[in-house]
Amino acid sequence: MVQVIEKQTGAAFKLQKGQKLKVIDPQGEQVSDMVLFNAEDPREKISSGKTLDFEESILITKGDWLWSNRSNKMMKILEDTNGRNDFLLAPCSPETFKIMYNNPDYHPSCFENLYTNLKPFGIEPDDVPTAFNIFMNVQFDEKGKLSVDPPLSKAGDYVLFEAEMDLIVALTACSAEDSNNGSFKPIHYEILD
Amino acid sequence: MVQVIEKQTGAAFKLQKGQKLKVIDPQGEQVSDMVLFNAEDPREKISSGKTLDFEESILITKGDWLWSNRSNKMMKILEDTNGRNDFLLAPCSPETFKIMYNNPDYHPSCFENLYTNLKPFGIEPDDVPTAFNIFMNVQFDEKGKLSVDPPLSKAGDYVLFEAEMDLIVALTACSAEDSNNGSFKPIHYEILD
Repeated sequence: MVQVIEKQTGAAFKLQKGQKLKVIDPQGEQVSDMVLFNAEDPREKISSGKTLDFEESILITKGDWLWSNRSNKMMKILEDTNGRNDFLLAPCSPETFKIMYNNPDYHPSCFENLYTNLKPFGIEPDDVPTAFNIFMNVQFDEKGKLSVDPPLSKAGDYVLFEAEMDLIVALTACSAEDSNNGSFKPIHYEILD
Repeated sequence: MVQVIEKQTGAAFKLQKGQKLKVIDPQGEQVSDMVLFNAEDPREKISSGKTLDFEESILITKGDWLWSNRSNKMMKILEDTNGRNDFLLAPCSPETFKIMYNNPDYHPSCFENLYTNLKPFGIEPDDVPTAFNIFMNVQFDEKGKLSVDPPLSKAGDYVLFEAEMDLIVALTACSAEDSNNGSFKPIHYEILD
């Protein structure tokens, strides 16, 4: 059954080893930040540094694994119809909008939407790692300069993951203007056995 | 006074706000992995995701700041005579040598050298984040493919940092063959007021 994450919100849930998670961009040009924790011991969690190291690539897609800080496989990417994801940048946070958008007022953020949804699992804000940013289109040039461009995803694009261990998963429908071309949208997901 | 980190070992120490830290490659072609924690509350620590986001670059050097998971500045880079550092890859760990070097035997690692030196500060292995890898030469192509090449640093190259808050700092002399062209060497450092 397809679950809906409304615009600028998030969700967290358990996923058992062997189950599949399909994350869908229903309208196109939207980003979903995803973090993973070992359901048995949440001090084990997704690691960008370990994933980029073991997969020997900045761009993580079909055929790659998402690795933990303890060097274990957490998920395999089985399908990726869009093919562009980011694993460099931290989830947008209140400070992102203050520092990068010059917006001193309250603004919803992926960071807030991750930690509030993870709270029932005993996970604190400081425990939220750099997320795997599904559909996020971060371009880099040969000098390493980064730019956040509109996602390349079209309506219906999805990424299909398979859990390699029992997991706590948190997902967002991204709250940052630059990440979704200024148009906030929902994200859909489906758990498949 | 110059402190010596012998080959394949590490060190950890406190650095007060306003103090400067000079990390020196005394012989050339050696890497030092550095992690930072807020001395008042070690749950605040260096974040690659926040740093790459706020500095809008993969390559972090002179004029940039190192940022924390709470979006605070931890250090400013005042000087960088070599200019190439890495902030993508996790510290080499026992699993690095098993998975990437096909070496099932014990091997010293930056991860072990970081967590053993950080233990007196109450910091556990799971708390060690992706390090700022001083002098590490990780090349990337336009498709994001990563390769760990010999460091470009020459004997005497250094990076000078200034602490933006009271810090716990851990440093290594890297234990991985690929990071230092197969020749393990020491790292020197100096704390300047």
